[in-house]
Amino acid sequence: MTPGGVWDRARCEALDRDDPVAHVRERFVLPEGIVYLDGNSLGALPRSVPARLDEVATKEWGAGLVGSWEQWMSLPEQVGDKIARLIGAGKGEVVVIDSTTIALVKVLAAAVRARPGRHVVLTSVTNFPSDLYAATGVARLLGDVEVRTVEPADIDKVLDETVAALLLTHVDFRTGELFDLARLTAAAHSVGALAVWDLCHSAGAVIVDCERTGVDLAVGCSYKYLNGGPGAPAFAYVRRHLQATLENPLPGWLGHAAPFDFDATYSAATGIRGFVTSTPAILGLSALDSALDAFDGLTMEEIRQKSVSLTELFLASLEERQLPGLQLASPRQPAQRGSQVALRHSDGYAVVQALISRGVVADFRAPDLCRFGFSPLYVRHVDVFEAVEQLETVIGTKEYTDDRFSRRRAVT
Amino acid sequence: MTPGGVWDRARCEALDRDDPVAHVRERFVLPEGIVYLDGNSLGALPRSVPARLDEVATKEWGAGLVGSWEQWMSLPEQVGDKIARLIGAGKGEVVVIDSTTIALVKVLAAAVRARPGRHVVLTSVTNFPSDLYAATGVARLLGDVEVRTVEPADIDKVLDETVAALLLTHVDFRTGELFDLARLTAAAHSVGALAVWDLCHSAGAVIVDCERTGVDLAVGCSYKYLNGGPGAPAFAYVRRHLQATLENPLPGWLGHAAPFDFDATYSAATGIRGFVTSTPAILGLSALDSALDAFDGLTMEEIRQKSVSLTELFLASLEERQLPGLQLASPRQPAQRGSQVALRHSDGYAVVQALISRGVVADFRAPDLCRFGFSPLYVRHVDVFEAVEQLETVIGTKEYTDDRFSRRRAVT
Repeated sequence: MTPGGVWDRARCEALDRDDPVAHVRERFVLPEGIVYLDGNSLGALPRSVPARLDEVATKEWGAGLVGSWEQWMSLPEQVGDKIARLIGAGKGEVVVIDSTTIALVKVLAAAVRARPGRHVVLTSVTNFPSDLYAATGVARLLGDVEVRTVEPADIDKVLDETVAALLLTHVDFRTGELFDLARLTAAAHSVGALAVWDLCHSAGAVIVDCERTGVDLAVGCSYKYLNGGPGAPAFAYVRRHLQATLENPLPGWLGHAAPFDFDATYSAATGIRGFVTSTPAILGLSALDSALDAFDGLTMEEIRQKSVSLTELFLASLEERQLPGLQLASPRQPAQRGSQVALRHSDGYAVVQALISRGVVADFRAPDLCRFGFSPLYVRHVDVFEAVEQLETVIGTKEYTDDRFSRRRAVT
Repeated sequence: MTPGGVWDRARCEALDRDDPVAHVRERFVLPEGIVYLDGNSLGALPRSVPARLDEVATKEWGAGLVGSWEQWMSLPEQVGDKIARLIGAGKGEVVVIDSTTIALVKVLAAAVRARPGRHVVLTSVTNFPSDLYAATGVARLLGDVEVRTVEPADIDKVLDETVAALLLTHVDFRTGELFDLARLTAAAHSVGALAVWDLCHSAGAVIVDCERTGVDLAVGCSYKYLNGGPGAPAFAYVRRHLQATLENPLPGWLGHAAPFDFDATYSAATGIRGFVTSTPAILGLSALDSALDAFDGLTMEEIRQKSVSLTELFLASLEERQLPGLQLASPRQPAQRGSQVALRHSDGYAVVQALISRGVVADFRAPDLCRFGFSPLYVRHVDVFEAVEQLETVIGTKEYTDDRFSRRRAVT
C-alpha cells in the first residue's frame, strides 16, 4: 500500500483490481450483502465442497459401499500432503486425524516421552485454553510432569534443561500476535527440548516453514483459514527424522502396520501413518480435501502478502478515522501479526452485535476484544472499507448502546 | 419361521411379505443387483442423508456461516439421545464424539481412575484388536495398570477384586457370538469392578438394555448398523450416576462448563457433555443424525426379531444344502448370536471374492472366516435366498479356485 490520501471506496477497489489473489474469491460461496470477517473462527464454504460431499455420499458410500475403503484408506495422508505444502512441510510429514485437542494430546505426550528425565511442559498463559487443558491432561496421564505456564515475555528466562517440550500457539487467538516460531524453536532446541506448535491460526494465512525452522511437532485445525468446514478434522505434523522414534500414545487399529491382520499386539505403521488411531472421518476428510483445492496455483507468499495488505488497510483506515473508545490489541507491525486484528472496546460485545446486524460478521472474546479476521482467499479490500464504514457508524451514532445489542451470551 | 419344506425363493418372498420391518428398506439407497451383507462393516446409505449433507453445507455452513454454531453446538448430545433409545439408555447418557478407539480411551481411563487401588483391566483375547491397543495405551499412560487378556471362558475365573474394569465387546467381530452382557456386568459388579462394553456390533441390531443391565460405560461406532457413513463419529455412554464422579481424561474446551469464558483452568461441564473434548465434526454428526431417522417408528424388539429371522433363514438354508468345506463359526442358537453369521472355509478369501463378483457382498477375516452381516433395516429374506444360491454355485462349481479370486490383500 502506498501512504497518503484517504482510504475511500475507490482506492480500495483499485487495490482489489491489482490484487493477484482476487480471482480466488470466486472459489467460495459467500452470502450476498455480508462482509465476512470471521474466517479465523469458521472459514467460508468453498464452491467445490457441496458437489464433492454429494459424490462421496451417493457414489462412494451409496453405490461403492464398503469397497470404497480402497480409495478412502489413504485419505489421512493424501490430505495431509496437501496441507504440508501450506506449512512448509514435506510429503509424508502431515496427517489429518481426530480433532485439534486430541491430535495435540498425541504429539505432546509423544514429545514428553521422547525426553525422559525432563519433567516440564513449558507454555504461555496466553495459549488457547484447550491447549492448556490438553497439556494438563497429558501431564496427569504421564505423571511426574509439570505444566509451567508463563507470560510470553518470560519464556526465554524459564526455558531450561528440565523442559521436555515447549508448547506454543503460533498466532495468539485473542490478539493475533505472531510468535517468533523460528527463534523460539531454536531456543527450545538449544536446551534440548522439543518444539510443539499449534498452527490453528496460521495454516493457510501465515508463512510457516516447518522444515527450515526445525519445528519438531505441530497440530492445527482445518476449519479456519483452510476452510474445511465446521469441526473438520485436525492435522498433525511430525518431523520426518522423529517419526521412527516417536510413538502415538493412543494406538488404534488404523495406525497398525497391518490392520487387517487383526493382531492382538500393536505394531505401528512406519512413518506418519502411526499417528492415525481409528477409522478416519471420511465425510469431513473429503470436504477438507476438496476445500484445499481453493489453494491451487497460489503460493503462501502471495497469500501472506494479501493478508498483510488487508490488515494494514484496516489499521490505516481506523487510524484515519480515529473512532473513540477503540484501542488496538494487536501488534501494529505486520511482521508481528497474523491475519486478524483485535480491537478493545469496553462495550465490545455490543459493538460486535451491532456490526453483525449491519452485515459485518466479526466476533467477540471476553472481556473486551472485538476480533476481525481477514481470510486472504476471499476477503476483498472493499470489504475492509465496508467494515470500517459500518464500524464508524456503530461507534459514531452509539448504536451499540441500543438494548438489542446488549450482552446475552457469547456463542461464537 | 415355521420348520419343514424347502427354503426356496417363493417361501422367502412370503417371509418378506409378512415382515413388519420390510417397508424400512425404502429408507435406504441400495445399488441395483447387489445383495449387501456387509452392513456390519459399513452400513448402507440412508436415503435422507445426501439432502441433509447438502443442507448443512450450503445453508448452515455456506449461508449461516459461524452463526450456525447456535444450532450445531448441542448436536453431540442431541444425536446421542437418538442413539440412547436404541441401546436402552436414558436421555443425557449418550454423547457422540471422536472415533471409537479415542472414545474408549476416555471411558476406560476414567473407569480405572474411579477404582483406585485396583490395577487390572480384564478383557478377552477375542476382543477387537483396536480395543486391546486402546487398553494397552491406557495402561501405559496411567502406569501401574495391567491389561489381562484371557479366553472368554476364563473371564469368571479371573475376575477378582484386583480388577478395575471389565472391558468386553458385546458381539464378537469374528464369530458374531453374543456375550451375556447382563450376567457379565453383574459379575463385574460383584467384585466391585466397572463394566465397560464395546457396542460396535450391537447398536441398532441387538437388544442392549444399558439401564436395566447396569452397564457402567460403553462406546460404539455408528457406521455399522446405525448407518452413519464411513468414519462416522463414535458414541459414548456414561451411566447417569457416574457422570458426577468420572472425569474425561482428555479434557478440551468444548467439554468445559463455560467454553466461551476461555478460562486457563479446566472446569468440566456437568453431565455427559464433559466427555466432549474438541470441536464436534458437524458434517459427520449431521449425516448420522439424519441416518438415525431410519429407525423412526421401530422398536429394537422388532429389529432384533427381523435380524434373528434373517440369520436363522441363512443357517436353515445352508443346513438344507449341505455345501462342502463350510463350517459354522457362529453359535447355532440365535440367543447367542448377533446379526452376523461367520463360516469357515479353507479358501475363505477366494470364496468371498467370488461371491462379490456375483453381486453378493460379504467380507473376509483372516485366517479363514467368511462373514455375512444381516442388517435388519434393509436386508430382505429374498436377499438371503440369493446369497445362498450364489454361495452354492461358488462352492459347487469350485469357481472360487479360479485365479482371479486368489489372495491379493484384504482391504475391507
